[in-house]
Amino acid sequence: MVPNGEASHKGKSSGEFLQIQLPPHHNFSRQVSLETGFAALNAEANRGKNAAFSPRGAKDRRILSRNGKSLGITTGAVAGADGVRKGDFSMFRTKSTLHKQLSMLPIRKESGLDLQNADGSSAGGGGGESGREESINQSVPAGRYFAALRGPELDEVKDSEDILLPTDQIWPFLLRFPINCFGICLGLGSQTILWQSLSTSPAMSFLHIPPYINTAIWFLALVTLVSVSLTYALKTAFFLEAVRREYFHPVRINFFFAPWISCMFLAIGAPPSLAPARPHPAVWCALFAPVFVLELKIYGQWLSGGKRRLCKLANPSSHLSVVGNFVGAVLAARVGWGEAGKFLWAIGIAHYLCVFVTLYQRLPTSQTLPKELHPVYCMFIATPSAASLAWNAIYGEFDAVARTFYFIALFLYTSLIVRINFFRGFKFSVAWWSYTFPMTTASMAAIKYAEEVPTILSKGLALGLALISSAIVSSLFISTLLHGFVWCSLFPNDLAIAISRSKHSSSAANIRIAKDKKSAPAARSRYDNLRRWAKKSLIPTTIDHHSSGHDSDDKRCTI
Amino acid sequence: MVPNGEASHKGKSSGEFLQIQLPPHHNFSRQVSLETGFAALNAEANRGKNAAFSPRGAKDRRILSRNGKSLGITTGAVAGADGVRKGDFSMFRTKSTLHKQLSMLPIRKESGLDLQNADGSSAGGGGGESGREESINQSVPAGRYFAALRGPELDEVKDSEDILLPTDQIWPFLLRFPINCFGICLGLGSQTILWQSLSTSPAMSFLHIPPYINTAIWFLALVTLVSVSLTYALKTAFFLEAVRREYFHPVRINFFFAPWISCMFLAIGAPPSLAPARPHPAVWCALFAPVFVLELKIYGQWLSGGKRRLCKLANPSSHLSVVGNFVGAVLAARVGWGEAGKFLWAIGIAHYLCVFVTLYQRLPTSQTLPKELHPVYCMFIATPSAASLAWNAIYGEFDAVARTFYFIALFLYTSLIVRINFFRGFKFSVAWWSYTFPMTTASMAAIKYAEEVPTILSKGLALGLALISSAIVSSLFISTLLHGFVWCSLFPNDLAIAISRSKHSSSAANIRIAKDKKSAPAARSRYDNLRRWAKKSLIPTTIDHHSSGHDSDDKRCTI
Amino acid sequence: MVPNGEASHKGKSSGEFLQIQLPPHHNFSRQVSLETGFAALNAEANRGKNAAFSPRGAKDRRILSRNGKSLGITTGAVAGADGVRKGDFSMFRTKSTLHKQLSMLPIRKESGLDLQNADGSSAGGGGGESGREESINQSVPAGRYFAALRGPELDEVKDSEDILLPTDQIWPFLLRFPINCFGICLGLGSQTILWQSLSTSPAMSFLHIPPYINTAIWFLALVTLVSVSLTYALKTAFFLEAVRREYFHPVRINFFFAPWISCMFLAIGAPPSLAPARPHPAVWCALFAPVFVLELKIYGQWLSGGKRRLCKLANPSSHLSVVGNFVGAVLAARVGWGEAGKFLWAIGIAHYLCVFVTLYQRLPTSQTLPKELHPVYCMFIATPSAASLAWNAIYGEFDAVARTFYFIALFLYTSLIVRINFFRGFKFSVAWWSYTFPMTTASMAAIKYAEEVPTILSKGLALGLALISSAIVSSLFISTLLHGFVWCSLFPNDLAIAISRSKHSSSAANIRIAKDKKSAPAARSRYDNLRRWAKKSLIPTTIDHHSSGHDSDDKRCTI
Repeated sequence: MVPNGEASHKGKSSGEFLQIQLPPHHNFSRQVSLETGFAALNAEANRGKNAAFSPRGAKDRRILSRNGKSLGITTGAVAGADGVRKGDFSMFRTKSTLHKQLSMLPIRKESGLDLQNADGSSAGGGGGESGREESINQSVPAGRYFAALRGPELDEVKDSEDILLPTDQIWPFLLRFPINCFGICLGLGSQTILWQSLSTSPAMSFLHIPPYINTAIWFLALVTLVSVSLTYALKTAFFLEAVRREYFHPVRINFFFAPWISCMFLAIGAPPSLAPARPHPAVWCALFAPVFVLELKIYGQWLSGGKRRLCKLANPSSHLSVVGNFVGAVLAARVGWGEAGKFLWAIGIAHYLCVFVTLYQRLPTSQTLPKELHPVYCMFIATPSAASLAWNAIYGEFDAVARTFYFIALFLYTSLIVRINFFRGFKFSVAWWSYTFPMTTASMAAIKYAEEVPTILSKGLALGLALISSAIVSSLFISTLLHGFVWCSLFPNDLAIAISRSKHSSSAANIRIAKDKKSAPAARSRYDNLRRWAKKSLIPTTIDHHSSGHDSDDKRCTI
Repeated sequence: MVPNGEASHKGKSSGEFLQIQLPPHHNFSRQVSLETGFAALNAEANRGKNAAFSPRGAKDRRILSRNGKSLGITTGAVAGADGVRKGDFSMFRTKSTLHKQLSMLPIRKESGLDLQNADGSSAGGGGGESGREESINQSVPAGRYFAALRGPELDEVKDSEDILLPTDQIWPFLLRFPINCFGICLGLGSQTILWQSLSTSPAMSFLHIPPYINTAIWFLALVTLVSVSLTYALKTAFFLEAVRREYFHPVRINFFFAPWISCMFLAIGAPPSLAPARPHPAVWCALFAPVFVLELKIYGQWLSGGKRRLCKLANPSSHLSVVGNFVGAVLAARVGWGEAGKFLWAIGIAHYLCVFVTLYQRLPTSQTLPKELHPVYCMFIATPSAASLAWNAIYGEFDAVARTFYFIALFLYTSLIVRINFFRGFKFSVAWWSYTFPMTTASMAAIKYAEEVPTILSKGLALGLALISSAIVSSLFISTLLHGFVWCSLFPNDLAIAISRSKHSSSAANIRIAKDKKSAPAARSRYDNLRRWAKKSLIPTTIDHHSSGHDSDDKRCTI
Repeated sequence: MVPNGEASHKGKSSGEFLQIQLPPHHNFSRQVSLETGFAALNAEANRGKNAAFSPRGAKDRRILSRNGKSLGITTGAVAGADGVRKGDFSMFRTKSTLHKQLSMLPIRKESGLDLQNADGSSAGGGGGESGREESINQSVPAGRYFAALRGPELDEVKDSEDILLPTDQIWPFLLRFPINCFGICLGLGSQTILWQSLSTSPAMSFLHIPPYINTAIWFLALVTLVSVSLTYALKTAFFLEAVRREYFHPVRINFFFAPWISCMFLAIGAPPSLAPARPHPAVWCALFAPVFVLELKIYGQWLSGGKRRLCKLANPSSHLSVVGNFVGAVLAARVGWGEAGKFLWAIGIAHYLCVFVTLYQRLPTSQTLPKELHPVYCMFIATPSAASLAWNAIYGEFDAVARTFYFIALFLYTSLIVRINFFRGFKFSVAWWSYTFPMTTASMAAIKYAEEVPTILSKGLALGLALISSAIVSSLFISTLLHGFVWCSLFPNDLAIAISRSKHSSSAANIRIAKDKKSAPAARSRYDNLRRWAKKSLIPTTIDHHSSGHDSDDKRCTI
């Protein structure tokens, strides 16, 4: 409630694609005029202090405190700790910009993002400020994400879980901006290369694709990439704790590869009129270095196998952490460093092998993926397609190896297409963008194959795949615009980053309350039922209360 | 008991190989004269009604009802539900040919063979007609097969399990005719190709094998294939439910590939005097289409990973579902569609990789295979041999890839040969035929290798392997004839398809009985001991009672 | 107690490297002057008898009996069974050389080293001689090793475990001489080949390495190999039971490949001045035959998957059981048998695949490896490097396959190097030698690559890797000398071979004792605490008592 309008709309000036808009204004803060950037941030910090003294703000807070994390804790307990309520969003803030006097030790201990130490003891369930702080600063263990979340992207919270932030409010924009947004750049960047191939490939010359389509998409992709990168950079600056939680998230971690892969896509798909035919090797070095560092980190975790061993973490989005090698190999071949490309191809194939076999085995330890198909399964197509393209780029011929990978991708594509319940029953999310680039990669491999084996069938297949991928990217583009600017539902509250660090901490309070009522088990189960009911029924009510109250069109501004 | 003579001896006219003979005649139905085909079927349905009124039949039924599924249920309960007893075999009948008025809904729901839905709720243990029907119509979940069956082929019922059909009778012939019989076609079909190679390969020219051996085996294989196919088609027509249960069986499902692989073997091994050197591509399309559909289904199950994930289902017979790709690739190369062959090779190698690693790891989730060696382990040799042959056929040279796979097969062969307890302690079954074609494939690969590296050692190895495989096929052929026509034990009751859908349903009745006796645990354990004893001791008795009664030479007719 | 000084220092004459020295002298035998060889052995046997009658010896024994295996058993019970105490070391003796009248049956039953039968029933926990004998003769099941031991080399005993031999004494030298010592031969043998490559490779010609360095190292390695082999042969002759326990140890079993791989290293790295350029194929046959037999055994265990299935046994040292194939392939190419080399390469790659994927997945069944890095992880580098070298040797070119494996090795090397806690917190052991040869292999592959791609970077990399590996080998050599001859701590008591066969047997005695005290649970837990404390505190005390007593420089003689 207090600092919940953290939107920064610097994106407004950064292009026609991504319009990040205004902060939500609830009834107790609607008097604040629209401000921008850091000014808004400072203003909100002040607002938070003011709101603590306004009677209406206090009343609102009491209502809200029955939901979300502190649901069920008696109002007195919460009202007595104003610092706790104020910390609701600020606990994800970058620590150095906030209260420096508090608990610098755990931050310093954890700032190295040492994933190996993620199995620490759970915080003792206390309600005090320092306990809460500690519980946030310590990284969430991998098993906790699987225990508390569900869905193929691990982005939905299980019913039995409480989360740290109030679910009835709309959170600050930056907190709701997930790393998955780089998927948009992946989708557009790969389209750039596809249309470059379509316009330049001899196999596709019968289409007479003009080269300016490539140029147009390239600029669109560039603008998107810059916008998303800037926004996420702001998130990193202001909400470092939230970024760290995304980094520890078993699915999201793979999306940290997306920015660099997007850049490589843009470097590969740059229009010939703008870029030299052979970019400088420094481009490759600059773009691949972060990928390499991430790989050393993530593959090392698999290998040394603490809590984040492959057999537990493997999910289709793990392909994202492998495919970067093949994209990097293509770029290496483009800049003329063939041996570096072969190096990347070798890394990629070794780890692709592990990921492929692990995912196909569907070990009993990885039970989190539902059996329904989902766009995330498209990731299966990405890696063999990219491996095929990379081999062709490095060794200069579409030989048996490249064909084998291309055909594997083709079979997996077929295997997914024949399943009818493909896009059924899943609500749109920005992560879907990531699932378009595999299809684009497959169509690029099909074009290469059609160059090698120029038959009607292969050309038709290449054309068909290209059309499918472009159609899907177009429809996603429209969907994104609709969700973003018309329905304002592109960025819902990012519940996945706000799970409590341990189940224990949230239920401790309940037990204490139940104990007070003298008849623990019965009271507790009754209480739990009440809580479930409250969570499900109260939240829409209070949201309605907020949104239907005053300035109801404000809701549109939260994207 | 009543409709238990469902033998159809149309096989009698279909060649000298497969003589399917007469139905068993028990003492209460021996007055019925031998009839054929549909006439017999109709007659039996009538007989069932008549038998219900004959006092001797009723008495027999009371005796029998102490065994099999309903063992232990008081006679009154069974005698009160004549429909249940009559349904004993008819519940595996194709539903549309029987009582159409009953429960069409579950059939329609399940007719798509939707394996994903196989985890439904267990039937409630009731004894009524509709409950039984439902329990049959719903597909048996994969875990149930592992829980109730044992042995490397999952064809033996654990002692603690009851089965739905009476074990003391000889079931209708079609119910006892398993899909494994196509293994005979696999074994003979691969011999066809082997002898074709022996007679035409330059490396083997020193043997001067006449080409007519190939022709003779080819015709034998053709006749066998037609006979088995027709019989199984009849089974599909009359006992669709039994076929569906085989389809859901974790081991048997792989044998559904066998018919098409056999056809491809015959197409590849066709004598040059009869067939053109390059068959029409339509042959390949027609034969590989069903394999491709099955693969999409089965690999998709592995990938999407419901209850039938690879880490649970993997067993040596899973190789059968992979090897089809390589055989198809050889045929594709034969018809001149090299690219299609490469496509199949790529599919095959990707999934072979998964199966190979999974089987070598021996995950703790796949604990069903006993540690003793068994013919089923021969399947390990099949896939690398076929991969080697396919690569040679597609790319035209026995290069490093083909050699690597050939040598892997050779090592696995050695690894199996050095184990002395190879063929020990397992009784002959028709499934053994499937385990001959891997050896044949290995010897074909050895011949190709001997062509490439014509040394004494390689030629001797090829000759030795060819001799071993032919010797084994010959001995199996004789064994099959002996078991089929002399010992009449080729097709025992196929217990694997008659397990109850859930453990619960069969024990519910026992609990009810035990409850009546007021002292549940003690009574139940005493009761269980009695049941075990009855199952073991009573069954031979009643079988003896039947067979030693009248017309004891009828036993020979049940194959 | 009596035959506990089984040291044999025949090594004294076998070179300057391995000086195996004198038996331990405890306070009750410190009056015996230093003797050598079998004389010492006999002397000790006599000494043992004398000590049994000396009052001080008896007192000492009573003190000692409170530690080790019999800790906590009342002195009377032990003192009453002198045979038990006498058997402490003799139970690991080769049975035929000892009391032949006793229990020949189990030896004969087990002498085939039939690992499949290793899951037999546990000995009944009796304290008698025959029960103890049986418990030793039966092989220890694989799970037991994992349950009782810890550390990446499974060489440390968990606190809760008792071991069969007294931990406060220094055991006979041969009992303390582990199979891991062949790692020294691996490290020196691979250095031989490295310096041969450095002196002959055109890519490294700018270094002007004289060939006599190769010769010097080769002789050093040869002497080491002969010494270690002779010592281990003596161990096999006198302590066959201990060797069998090493054979059943999940990590040590892989070291049984080390002697033969060392021999192959020496055959490959023989100085050109001494050996013909192309050795006789019989050399390859003689050296590879044992490896092949071991492989058939071990891979067969993985495949048939009893208790020793791959998913349970896989650990980084499993690479040792795979790398032999590639070294054998290099040797096969050297002797001119290219096809045999391809055969080995195929075996190697198939099983490397399984090991690599299994280790990368880190299945939950293999939880024994700590997450800290350890020299044992260097083994990851060995196999791809060797595969690359072998492919180059067999097929004559460093093509895409060889490069892919070389680059995989390079990435894994990088992945290990960037982890800072690499050599931290682990005390030196002779097993570290095994972890040097992967680096040497990697640098050999780098030299081959530098020959193929002669750039500054590749040559520099090759030189750097060669320097690293030589530096590590040198420092290990010095460490070994220091530990061996100065600090006398090279061969500590080899606790891993002395775990009890089942947890039950050791605690049974305690239960019996506790029962006597009438208040079983409380007494037992108090008793256990006492036992733990005694184990931790008493042992150093008594050791100090021994060593600080008289002739404290005797300690140096135990190596």
